[in-house]
Amino acid sequence: MMKKNRLEAFSDGVIAIIITIMVLEMKIPHGDDWAALKPLIPVFLSYVLSFIYVGLYWNNHHHLWQIVDRVNGSVLWANLHLLFWLSLFPFATGWLGENHFAMWPTALYGFVLFMAAIAWFILARTLIRLHGKDSPIAEAYGRDWKGKLPLLIYTSGIILAFWNTWVSQALY
Amino acid sequence: MMKKNRLEAFSDGVIAIIITIMVLEMKIPHGDDWAALKPLIPVFLSYVLSFIYVGLYWNNHHHLWQIVDRVNGSVLWANLHLLFWLSLFPFATGWLGENHFAMWPTALYGFVLFMAAIAWFILARTLIRLHGKDSPIAEAYGRDWKGKLPLLIYTSGIILAFWNTWVSQALY
Amino acid sequence: MMKKNRLEAFSDGVIAIIITIMVLEMKIPHGDDWAALKPLIPVFLSYVLSFIYVGLYWNNHHHLWQIVDRVNGSVLWANLHLLFWLSLFPFATGWLGENHFAMWPTALYGFVLFMAAIAWFILARTLIRLHGKDSPIAEAYGRDWKGKLPLLIYTSGIILAFWNTWVSQALY
Amino acid sequence: MMKKNRLEAFSDGVIAIIITIMVLEMKIPHGDDWAALKPLIPVFLSYVLSFIYVGLYWNNHHHLWQIVDRVNGSVLWANLHLLFWLSLFPFATGWLGENHFAMWPTALYGFVLFMAAIAWFILARTLIRLHGKDSPIAEAYGRDWKGKLPLLIYTSGIILAFWNTWVSQALY
Repeated sequence: MMKKNRLEAFSDGVIAIIITIMVLEMKIPHGDDWAALKPLIPVFLSYVLSFIYVGLYWNNHHHLWQIVDRVNGSVLWANLHLLFWLSLFPFATGWLGENHFAMWPTALYGFVLFMAAIAWFILARTLIRLHGKDSPIAEAYGRDWKGKLPLLIYTSGIILAFWNTWVSQALY
Repeated sequence: MMKKNRLEAFSDGVIAIIITIMVLEMKIPHGDDWAALKPLIPVFLSYVLSFIYVGLYWNNHHHLWQIVDRVNGSVLWANLHLLFWLSLFPFATGWLGENHFAMWPTALYGFVLFMAAIAWFILARTLIRLHGKDSPIAEAYGRDWKGKLPLLIYTSGIILAFWNTWVSQALY
Repeated sequence: MMKKNRLEAFSDGVIAIIITIMVLEMKIPHGDDWAALKPLIPVFLSYVLSFIYVGLYWNNHHHLWQIVDRVNGSVLWANLHLLFWLSLFPFATGWLGENHFAMWPTALYGFVLFMAAIAWFILARTLIRLHGKDSPIAEAYGRDWKGKLPLLIYTSGIILAFWNTWVSQALY
Repeated sequence: MMKKNRLEAFSDGVIAIIITIMVLEMKIPHGDDWAALKPLIPVFLSYVLSFIYVGLYWNNHHHLWQIVDRVNGSVLWANLHLLFWLSLFPFATGWLGENHFAMWPTALYGFVLFMAAIAWFILARTLIRLHGKDSPIAEAYGRDWKGKLPLLIYTSGIILAFWNTWVSQALY
């Protein structure tokens, strides 16, 4: 039986780095006045958005792991799979911010969000398989839509919101 | 009841990264003599300043968490909110250093400092609400100005100091 | 007798950073359409490949450390030696991706992989010497090829695969 | 009384990041052949050198902390002071490598090494003051030169070695 604490520590490390390197996409402007900051506003907004999303995943990971009892090889890989999609946030965020929430960057951002949500479900499912149907983890995340819905809503919400922005921009 | 140790580990990770990536703003100069280092002096000074500030926050976080007993969802988010403002230090520091402590970069730096202080108070308040009015944490941070004053003084001090520098530079 | 947990934490930190900074090699494109992403496909593929490899090492490290009982100075250095070769992954990956899996970058990548595998064997051997021939760690990793073969196969497989790609490209 | 484990975790995080971001100074070359790697050889050598030095500090930190019993505010700051000088390694290493171990970069590198050694002594001294003259930590690090000599030798050795290189290069 493997202990869970090292997996927690590794995930904390990766998520901490992801959430922090995103800020490196905000390149320091050359001018020293207020106007020099203006082009950074969309980059900043995409940073805030992604900080919230990654923070959300960390929060959920924290909650989920409270009731995890043990891990195995499948859980390690399911967790790495989640971290992989989270690791694409800095890239997707940077592209989104630099292009003022244009269509394709928005679509890519939505895609990464969506895949992270899928990876989350796979992780939850793998943990439930390991802990059994009567475990607290199955109680909390098993009954089909309870654990899944919020993330799907967030994902869809964001895709729609941005797409909408783009569509309305395209119309005028 | 959630345990506090993972929140500590995550905060340590984020603060460790913040304090370390600031050094990346000191771009390696092309020349190989002493003169090539000279333009980096203000960048270095802003790095030292920010290292001290972020170190101060880590120290305070460490002290605060010694007497924290448990956490909940609100504390997680209040802590993420603090980490968000701290994560803007590398950017604010880089802009400050590259522009030799000019007015707007100084103002932005002061603003980030100020918001981090605000986030700190919100975090302390959230923890007090969770632990109750008779808890050690309320003793140490609750009586209104005790826990707040140092940070406000630091913040105001620095803003005044820099502003002053700029004003005096502007006058001559 | 030294405890093993700090060595775990440090290794987790280094591996978490390695796996995450590789993504920084995917430079954000200037265009905002689908075509702008196309040149990034080989960079992305090399990132996926390296993510899997580094993930594999983290997994193996995790498994190995489960049965490690104690560490000494030699183990610390053998572990640092492994981390050194892993730390060259971001560079080797970036060069590989930017040059579309050309011959020399592929050879360098294979060399880094190979040296990491060698470092892994040295680490396992150092741990076995410390724990004795009857320890669980000698059981699991000592009988000559059991612990070594998978990694050697991976390494050779990848070298052959890439070399092959290049040879076939060179022929046509 | 403060516990020591969080200070360990934070130091591990910072040192792990320092040792890993140094590799980012090895910029990926544009060519895809062996010749493209050649200009990187001095950068690589300086990376290896710094990896060993930072690894040495981590090892020493690990050993020191094994016998540390408790920490206080002074220890926190003495430790941050050490981390500050270590955090200048990536910059000093990059400048050294890019300028093929020229005189001024070598001098700066030696200076950073020297200051890190000083910071180490201050940290050891602060810990001894806290633990008392009869503590294991005073036994191991207190008798004046025992704990200090190795580092001073390393430092002087390296400075002499490099300076020598430069002097001999200047003579011919």
